[in-house]
Amino acid sequence: MVESTVTIHDVARHAGVSAATVSNYFNWPDKLSDRMKKRVATAVTDLGFVPSMPARQLRRQRSGIVGLSVVNASNPFFGGIATAVEQVAEDAGLSVVVGSSHESPVQQEKFLTLFEQLRFDGVVVAPSDDQLEPLRKRHDRGTPVVLVDHEDPDGRLSSVSLDHREGGRIAAGHLVDSGRRRLLFAAGPEGVRQVARRLEGAREAVAERDDVRLDVVRSSDLDITVGEETGRWIAALDPPERPDAVFAGNDLHAIGLVDALVKAGIRVPEDIAVVGYDDIPFARRAAVPLTTVRQPIAEMGRAAARLLLDEIAEPGRPPRDVVYPPELVVRASAP
Amino acid sequence: MVESTVTIHDVARHAGVSAATVSNYFNWPDKLSDRMKKRVATAVTDLGFVPSMPARQLRRQRSGIVGLSVVNASNPFFGGIATAVEQVAEDAGLSVVVGSSHESPVQQEKFLTLFEQLRFDGVVVAPSDDQLEPLRKRHDRGTPVVLVDHEDPDGRLSSVSLDHREGGRIAAGHLVDSGRRRLLFAAGPEGVRQVARRLEGAREAVAERDDVRLDVVRSSDLDITVGEETGRWIAALDPPERPDAVFAGNDLHAIGLVDALVKAGIRVPEDIAVVGYDDIPFARRAAVPLTTVRQPIAEMGRAAARLLLDEIAEPGRPPRDVVYPPELVVRASAP
Repeated sequence: MVESTVTIHDVARHAGVSAATVSNYFNWPDKLSDRMKKRVATAVTDLGFVPSMPARQLRRQRSGIVGLSVVNASNPFFGGIATAVEQVAEDAGLSVVVGSSHESPVQQEKFLTLFEQLRFDGVVVAPSDDQLEPLRKRHDRGTPVVLVDHEDPDGRLSSVSLDHREGGRIAAGHLVDSGRRRLLFAAGPEGVRQVARRLEGAREAVAERDDVRLDVVRSSDLDITVGEETGRWIAALDPPERPDAVFAGNDLHAIGLVDALVKAGIRVPEDIAVVGYDDIPFARRAAVPLTTVRQPIAEMGRAAARLLLDEIAEPGRPPRDVVYPPELVVRASAP
Repeated sequence: MVESTVTIHDVARHAGVSAATVSNYFNWPDKLSDRMKKRVATAVTDLGFVPSMPARQLRRQRSGIVGLSVVNASNPFFGGIATAVEQVAEDAGLSVVVGSSHESPVQQEKFLTLFEQLRFDGVVVAPSDDQLEPLRKRHDRGTPVVLVDHEDPDGRLSSVSLDHREGGRIAAGHLVDSGRRRLLFAAGPEGVRQVARRLEGAREAVAERDDVRLDVVRSSDLDITVGEETGRWIAALDPPERPDAVFAGNDLHAIGLVDALVKAGIRVPEDIAVVGYDDIPFARRAAVPLTTVRQPIAEMGRAAARLLLDEIAEPGRPPRDVVYPPELVVRASAP
């Protein structure tokens, strides 16, 4: 990108005002009369002048922008979080830019460093792993930081989360209560904390049951395409080796998985019951409507944005945690 | 956000090196030995020093970041575009931040101004309206700009698009060919150019047919929830007033619409056939698998990212247009 060749002095000359007036126009507009503002604005438009935000930011501390780092914005769970954050931020006159870490702590760190360097007003982060220390350090240096879909065990960061262990417990408990005995947890990649918690909860639900087996299958991701691969893998097992129930790490994975099972002639739920997680808008509209653990997605996004606005307004305020209870929604895939 | 109180001089003192060495560490790291790099890195971490990107950017012109402005990243069409852009950019060592304009030209302009002020390496824009002049001006000032899901009638900007008029023609043509005579186009809000084109195409498809009616219903948005409202509105019409086919502005709208029709006891496709647009991943997995006009979403995103990388590498290169043909995918909702 080349530097704009129009300078503040060109604008001043064009508008017939001083360079200080043009500077005021961008930095302290209240100092200018409406007539003067209009003159400068016209010159700015005519010449296509772009004030250098970097230079301005060195003087002014607010950018009017909130950064949001999520695992994957094209997963409707995070998309819903983003939309809710955008709505609350917009009402407060702030814009939101979003980065997707795709489960890479390195990529997440890149976004956070960028947001900090650009002096964003604050950040909302849905981290994919347990490494919260870089976030806590940023917070301690004065950046408002709010976690979403993750709590801070040290209690240093405000957070909005859901008890995923309890979510895993009620999902697996429902499968056992409905007579299933060979459960498979389709877990996606290692290291995603939220999913690890769901698995812990599922293990607790079956811990006292000698007659129930709980296996785990890993995959590279938790999306629809990889869900189909997991489904095909299950369909290729010898029938006695197949699970009679699958608890999928999220709804996307469950939807792809059901798709592949049905295509392979396996009946859902008769042969294999499937439970998802999140209750994204497509869960209840899927070919086999999906039993799932509901997260109140929009509410969580709004709560995170409100916590952030509070922290921007009152830096250093004590952290607060908002914890939502998970809720099992029973549909056709696991009645 | 408070300014970091740690300066480059504090880091230099802590590391036992000169301030120039610390500066080199951030701006020309190749000048430093590995041992020296490690010394500075340790001091930076110990003190929590944050180099001011703004100051650095005034000297260096590349930020390593690409901006993406889309209509709504939580629509899986735009989510898919974003994921594809992210993949290509990541392979080139660039990060992507995303802003959702939510069909507001003012919000889109905010993002573009921000991206330009931050000296992003380039921007990919999926504009929601016809106002391309601000984008062309940015391009003329030296910002690499590529349009996606929109062409530039003046041929000044590179673009990746699909012939939406042809898409509308084949969708409506299919409904007429399968015997439908009272078509309703569920169009969403006025002013969305891509949808307006689909409507033009649909009108062309029925223009010569005196026995076919094509009505248009507007709504505030083209998402699932508003699709349900449109479906309920149709269900509340006197049966003779009801359409026998609906062409929805996009798949999200169609999925919500089918949901509401079925809930109201109207059979899809027997009573009302429904065609969507986009072929998002959920279209073929919906309760009634959706007939739709496929856009090659991932390919379009990748093509846009590649055009942008070319323009970043070779500023001022002549614009290129990649146009994809629409493809009708026939499923249960409109056989």
